[in-house]
This record gives sequence, C-alpha cells and structure tokens, in this order.
Amino acid sequence: MAAEKKAPFVILGVDPGFSVTGYAILKQDETGKAFLLDYGYLKMSPKNHLSERVGEFYNCFSEKIKLYGVTQVSLETSFLGKNPQTFLKLGYLRGVLYLLANQNNLGLLEFSPREIKMSVVGFGGATKDQVAAMVLRLFPGLNKMAKIAKNDVTDALAICVCGLWQKRQDLLQKMR
Amino acid sequence: MAAEKKAPFVILGVDPGFSVTGYAILKQDETGKAFLLDYGYLKMSPKNHLSERVGEFYNCFSEKIKLYGVTQVSLETSFLGKNPQTFLKLGYLRGVLYLLANQNNLGLLEFSPREIKMSVVGFGGATKDQVAAMVLRLFPGLNKMAKIAKNDVTDALAICVCGLWQKRQDLLQKMR
Repeated sequence: MAAEKKAPFVILGVDPGFSVTGYAILKQDETGKAFLLDYGYLKMSPKNHLSERVGEFYNCFSEKIKLYGVTQVSLETSFLGKNPQTFLKLGYLRGVLYLLANQNNLGLLEFSPREIKMSVVGFGGATKDQVAAMVLRLFPGLNKMAKIAKNDVTDALAICVCGLWQKRQDLLQKMR
Repeated sequence: MAAEKKAPFVILGVDPGFSVTGYAILKQDETGKAFLLDYGYLKMSPKNHLSERVGEFYNCFSEKIKLYGVTQVSLETSFLGKNPQTFLKLGYLRGVLYLLANQNNLGLLEFSPREIKMSVVGFGGATKDQVAAMVLRLFPGLNKMAKIAKNDVTDALAICVCGLWQKRQDLLQKMR
C-alpha cells in the first residue's frame, strides 16, 4: 500500500513586541516531514511613530505570509503585566495578526504559555532557558544565531512547534 | 482684502468596541465651515470569529476613509477596566486604526476622556449624558437617531469635535 498523502501546511509562529518580534515558519509537507522555512526577528525603531511601526509590522508579515504560503498563525495568549499601556499596545500587534489571518484566510491557533512549555519541554512550568535549550536541540542550526533576540526567536519557534503538533493531532483525529 | 483660504481637513472620530463602534466624520472646508459628513455605528456579530470581526472593522473604516477623503483620525485614550482581556482586544481595533492611519497617511490625534469632556462640555468631569446633551445641541439632527447605540455615536462625535478644535488651534498658531 502506498503511503498516505497528507495535506501540507505552513505555520507562522509569532512572539510580537514593539521592540523585538520573534518569528518562525515551519512547513509540513505531503509526506509528513517538517522543515524550518524561515526564522528571525523584526526590530522596530522606537523613534518612529507607533502607527509607522504598526504599518511596518503589517508589511513584514504580510510579505512572509505570501512568500511562504502560510496557512496557519500560531500565537501565545497574552496576560496583563506590570504596564497596562504596554499590554494595550501589544494588542495593536496582535490585532494586525488577526487582520492578516482574516485577509489571507489563515487558521488561528492560540496557546497558553503553559501549553507551549508542555508541548516543547514536556513540563508546563519550564523556564525560558529550558524552552530555548529544547528548541535549540530540535533545530541545532539556530546555535549560530547572534545572541541578540535569541530568546525571542526560540520563543517564536516554541509557539510554532506547539502549533505544528496541535495541527498534527487534529489531522490524526480526523483520519481515525 | 479677500478672506484667507484654509486648508480643508476631514476628521474621523472613532469610539471602538467589539460589540458596537460609534463613528463620526467632520469636514472643515476652505472657508473654515465645519460639516458633519457621516455618523453611525458598526455592530459586529459575537457569533463571528474575532479575526472576522477585526477584518470587518478594517474594511468598514478603510472604505469610509477613502469615500470621504479622511485626513485625520481622532481617538480617545483607553484605560484598563475590569477585564484585562477585553482591554487587550480593544487594542486589536485600535491597532487596526493605527494601521489605517499609516496606510492612508493620516494624522493621529489622541485625547484623554478629560480633554474630550473639557473641549465639548467645558468641564472635565462631565457625565456621559452631559456629553451626549451637548453633542445633540451642536448637531440637532442626531435626535432622530434610534436610541440604540446613541451614546456610542455621541461619544464618537465628541472625540471628533475635540479633534476638530485641536486642529483649528494648531492652524491658528501656525498662522501667527
């Protein structure tokens, strides 16, 4: 019997922030193999007006979505920190990702920090460094990356990996 | 001496919300006269996914901006209420307005609730009803409006009027 073909999908994981936004793009092809298509970070100048940065963020991810044929966006649920205005502004960037999902017919996956740690490290209370260490094991090439924004990128990759596994499980359940 | 011509401008005032968004559009023409071009509200179904509603919000105001040649967006500063997640989601809609400002080269005006009440009622501690009463005096035609969402629309108009007066002051200062 020939191996069953799977519908390919491309997940964009984003860890948004007005100073640094980490992102990663993973593809699962028809054979079920996963590839890292792109990863990195977007650094926006605090000198630019907020609306310029929102526009820059939109353009950056609009291009990535089209370039790689993204089918899903994966995000981490945000919780109120010390500064409510920073929290509100994080909402601006999340809103842009919701808009891009709508404009490009993408699925939206959202996970709590606990779910992400659980799926990547196997333990919901894992530290940021433990998550980074596990992600670097899964993708050893990332070790060459400059230290700047490394954690933002490993976080985005963890969010992306969590989305990939969730999507795989959904597909498995559908096949049963 | 001929009356000095003023640069016309069109202000979109928005009071965003996921259930009801009030909006108003005021134009000041070359002679310095102000006109109410449009006002109303956008009601989005809670049954639709958040990303669909974000898309609907974007499309609605993108069309209005083009239709009326909007030059400025006027907003009220948001403060954290009882529910942080509602506050974050309000950020999604504000982010869309920031994006539209960037995409259409619009100026962004933002005022605290106190500044808006001060400019419309002349008293920073005015109630919602006092604001509505004053706006209805300025625009008597609004009285015909159905009661539903009336306060959302009068709030948006107050935000718009505040933007108009701020803009006039700026122009006056430039002329000195």
